Amino acid sequence: MVLCECFARDGLQHEARFVATAVKIEAIERFAGLGFARVEATSYAHPKHVPQFADADAVLAGIARRAGVRYKATCVNLRALERALDAAAAGRGPSEVSVLVSASESHTRRNLNRSREEQWRIVEEMVAAAAQRFVLIGTISVALGCPFEGRVDPACVAAAARRLGALGVRHIAIGDTTGMGNPRSVAQLFRRLRDEVPGMTWIAHFHDTRGTAIANCIAAYEAGVRHFDSAFGGVGGHPTNIQYGEGYTGNVCTEDLATVFEAMGVSTGLDMSRLLETAAFCEAALGRPLRSMVARSGLGLAEAAHV
Amino acid sequence: MVLCECFARDGLQHEARFVATAVKIEAIERFAGLGFARVEATSYAHPKHVPQFADADAVLAGIARRAGVRYKATCVNLRALERALDAAAAGRGPSEVSVLVSASESHTRRNLNRSREEQWRIVEEMVAAAAQRFVLIGTISVALGCPFEGRVDPACVAAAARRLGALGVRHIAIGDTTGMGNPRSVAQLFRRLRDEVPGMTWIAHFHDTRGTAIANCIAAYEAGVRHFDSAFGGVGGHPTNIQYGEGYTGNVCTEDLATVFEAMGVSTGLDMSRLLETAAFCEAALGRPLRSMVARSGLGLAEAAHV
Repeated sequence: MVLCECFARDGLQHEARFVATAVKIEAIERFAGLGFARVEATSYAHPKHVPQFADADAVLAGIARRAGVRYKATCVNLRALERALDAAAAGRGPSEVSVLVSASESHTRRNLNRSREEQWRIVEEMVAAAAQRFVLIGTISVALGCPFEGRVDPACVAAAARRLGALGVRHIAIGDTTGMGNPRSVAQLFRRLRDEVPGMTWIAHFHDTRGTAIANCIAAYEAGVRHFDSAFGGVGGHPTNIQYGEGYTGNVCTEDLATVFEAMGVSTGLDMSRLLETAAFCEAALGRPLRSMVARSGLGLAEAAHV
Repeated sequence: MVLCECFARDGLQHEARFVATAVKIEAIERFAGLGFARVEATSYAHPKHVPQFADADAVLAGIARRAGVRYKATCVNLRALERALDAAAAGRGPSEVSVLVSASESHTRRNLNRSREEQWRIVEEMVAAAAQRFVLIGTISVALGCPFEGRVDPACVAAAARRLGALGVRHIAIGDTTGMGNPRSVAQLFRRLRDEVPGMTWIAHFHDTRGTAIANCIAAYEAGVRHFDSAFGGVGGHPTNIQYGEGYTGNVCTEDLATVFEAMGVSTGLDMSRLLETAAFCEAALGRPLRSMVARSGLGLAEAAHV
């Protein structure tokens, strides 16, 4: 399985305090050193909208690259992608960029302030411009439920995946943006996607809004998914959650997820002997206790496999 | 499925502040009113050791009984059971009592200060004395891992279950006391128990020490288990956890567990429209925010089924 560590981007996106560039760089280098084959490094969001990523260029220029590791940057629009392309031309770009569509019309309007069709036209332009240079990650958000519309028809998710596939995208992240999935809906959706949209690498990007993210990741794994996004300390809650009564909870917690997979006998590729040290670094970086359970309780039976 | 609400006993066992008898009684009555067919009401522990349950007799005498609901009391030894029998003779006893064995020798010594064989002799006496009067719940603790010994041989758990069965016990709670189980070890254990110890009602009693309790409950459900213990707010951490570096985390959280089961289409029998009101009552009873996620985030897609 392949874990993508999202602490430095999805984790920090809504963090009120600016995290120093040097700390972000050290975090990303630690993640790569720990064994993550994919690390979400930053976002080319406009600094006016997301000041946390005003240092996107500096972060990507500053990290010592590790062979075999892919560094991801999210791109919200064509202007963002142009920055990624400029950085790549200078040899300091990301290796992956993600493009975003939403499975529901209301979420697209509330989150991106445009219609789904408008967003698709932007995505089409971005994919055309980026395809030769980057690994493209198509992200479908609110795929397991929408805070505004409730249930999301799996057929809509499959249609969005097919449309991304038609553009040439081969990696698709399925976002449970506000934790509305459950193990059964997750298994059903991924089985359907596997059957209806062949040839894709599926990535589970799950949030823990209702305490189900670990159960949902395991259901995805049992349904054949081998790529997972997670963030140390379970950071990364989206303010949409609070704004619309959905609580404030972030990505599935890396250290808890890795620990249960290792206990199950599924290798994460991570150096588990340094997992909690990295968790402690992330807590120190944000200056507060984060939401990991194993950071308090230890690795349990996952430890035995690594001593 | 049948949920047993453990807030008033396992949840309060190590709560530092004494919770008023009237509050305990109201909690238990609310749980029964919400739809729990089983409620863990109190413990006949010696008041010197567990002052929280000095009011065990008053609690059981004070609750307005609801038809179809079973009220459980834990009994740590024969003296405790005698109190349960006296209360029952006066028409104010519990409907269930639990007796405890541990799957590991070290945990028995550290937790009960005697050997497993000594504990078995006590259990045999208790079962003989109680069998005619109460539904007996045999509890096997640290069944999915021991904080002192690590892995626990499923054969030991099966042997303990058979021995309880030979005494006439027909309900067995499998305790993951410090959250060392994972969905695979849970499924394997329950499949083995079902095959090797037929005729039992199995109860999953899981703690969330490493964030896996919901995933483990779902794995148990998929393996055929239909009885679950849980506690509002996820309260009930055992000090053993802290003492031996295992963190401080309690039972699987009732409101989160019920919500994911309902979202999966599995009826819990609870009145979901009043679930969060009960969660708020429990938080008020302890005077602090508890560990539920849905108490902050709402029921998500489980709501739709109940409006």
